Amino acid sequence: MATATNTATPNIITRRRNRSSSPRKGRPNHGFDRRLAKVLQYGTDVFYEKGYEGASMRDLSRASGMSLAGLYYYFESKERLLYMIQKHTFTTIVDRLKERLQTVSDPEARIRACILNHLEYFLANQKAMTVLSHEDDVLANGLGREIREIKREYYRTCVDLLDKLKEARGLEFNSRIAVLSLFGMMNWIYTWHNPRVDADAEEMALRMGDIFLRGICSVTPNRVAQKKK
Amino acid sequence: MATATNTATPNIITRRRNRSSSPRKGRPNHGFDRRLAKVLQYGTDVFYEKGYEGASMRDLSRASGMSLAGLYYYFESKERLLYMIQKHTFTTIVDRLKERLQTVSDPEARIRACILNHLEYFLANQKAMTVLSHEDDVLANGLGREIREIKREYYRTCVDLLDKLKEARGLEFNSRIAVLSLFGMMNWIYTWHNPRVDADAEEMALRMGDIFLRGICSVTPNRVAQKKK
Repeated sequence: MATATNTATPNIITRRRNRSSSPRKGRPNHGFDRRLAKVLQYGTDVFYEKGYEGASMRDLSRASGMSLAGLYYYFESKERLLYMIQKHTFTTIVDRLKERLQTVSDPEARIRACILNHLEYFLANQKAMTVLSHEDDVLANGLGREIREIKREYYRTCVDLLDKLKEARGLEFNSRIAVLSLFGMMNWIYTWHNPRVDADAEEMALRMGDIFLRGICSVTPNRVAQKKK
Repeated sequence: MATATNTATPNIITRRRNRSSSPRKGRPNHGFDRRLAKVLQYGTDVFYEKGYEGASMRDLSRASGMSLAGLYYYFESKERLLYMIQKHTFTTIVDRLKERLQTVSDPEARIRACILNHLEYFLANQKAMTVLSHEDDVLANGLGREIREIKREYYRTCVDLLDKLKEARGLEFNSRIAVLSLFGMMNWIYTWHNPRVDADAEEMALRMGDIFLRGICSVTPNRVAQKKK
C-alpha cells in the first residue's frame, strides 16, 4: 500500500478534515500522509487477521505499537478506518487505470490494460483486497455510499470498455455478466494465488485476458477477425 | 440447504459420533438429521450476519430459539458448527456433480454440467456460499484438513474435466489458471447476483459457460472445429 499513497491519500485527508475536528488542521500534510499510510497498513493487517467484527482498536494499538489516543488522532472509529482503507484502495485503482488508458486507444488493448491494472494492484496488495472483499457491506450510510460510488465509477468504466469493443467488432453479449465474470476471475485470485508457484501479474493478466477476451469475442456467430494491436 | 440434507448429513453425523461422546449414540438418525439441518441453517444465517469471529453460541441460541445446552447437544463448539456447514455444503456439491456426470459423456457437455451444478447450488444457497468464502481458512488441524481434502477432490474432478476436453480437442492451456478462473467467475456471483434483475442459474450457466468454454477453446492457434454435442 505504501507505494500508492501519493494519488489517494490527499483526498482521504481532505475529506477527514472537512468532517472532524482534527488537531492537524493547518499543519503541513506530508509527514501526516506517510504516517497515515502506515496506520492504514496496520489496520489492513489487523482486519485481515481478525476480521472486521473480531478486530478492536486495542488490537490495532498492539499491532502498530501506537497508543489508543494516538490512533484516535487519525480516525475516530474502527468503521472510519475501514472506510479509509477502502477509499484509499479503490481510488488508487481507478486513478491508475485512468492514467494507463490515456495512452491506449485499441479497444482490446484498453481491456487488457484494465486487467493488468487490476491484477497488478491486487497481487501487490493481497491483504487489502481480502479485507475489501470480506468487509464489502459493513459501512453504513454516508461512508458506505461514498465507497459504493467509487466502485460504481470503476464498474461503469469497465462496462464502457466492453461496450466499445462490442461496437468496434460488432459483438453481442451481456456486458453486465461479462464484466462481473471478469471481476470474479480476477478477484477470486486472493483465495488461491501463491507467488511461489503461480505466475506474476503480467503473465496472469495475459492468460486471464486470453480466456476472457476470446470468450466474449467468440460469442457472436459471425465473428469478426481480431485486429492486431 | 434443507433440500440437500439427504446425501450429505449422514456422513457428518457418522463422523461426529466417531469423535465425540454424543448422547444420541444408538438412537435412530432420522429426526436428528432434520433438526441438525435446521441448526446448520441457523448457524449459516448467524455467521452470515455477524461473521465467524463476531458470532457467538449465544447469538445462535437467540436466532434458533434453542437453549445453549440444546445447541451443545449437536456440536461442542462454534468451530465444529462451521466445520459441519462446510462439510455439508461441499459434500453435497461433489455428490450432485458425480450424479450428473454419470449420464453425460461429451467433454464439453460435462464441463457445462459442472458449471450448472455449481451455480444451481450456489444461487440456491447464497448465504452458505458467502460464509464458506469468507471463513475459508478458519478451521485448524484435523477439521480444516478434512474440508480441504473434499475441496481438493472437487478441484481435481474439475481439472480432470478440462484435461479431457484438452485431449479431445488438441487444446493447449494452463488447467490450473483455467479452473481457478472459472471458479472465480462462478463464486464471485455471491457479491452481485440479484434474483430480481439477473438471470437464473440455468441462464447464468449458459452465459458463463459460453465465455469460459469459448475462451479456453480459442487459446490454441490451430483451433479444432467444435463438435456439436
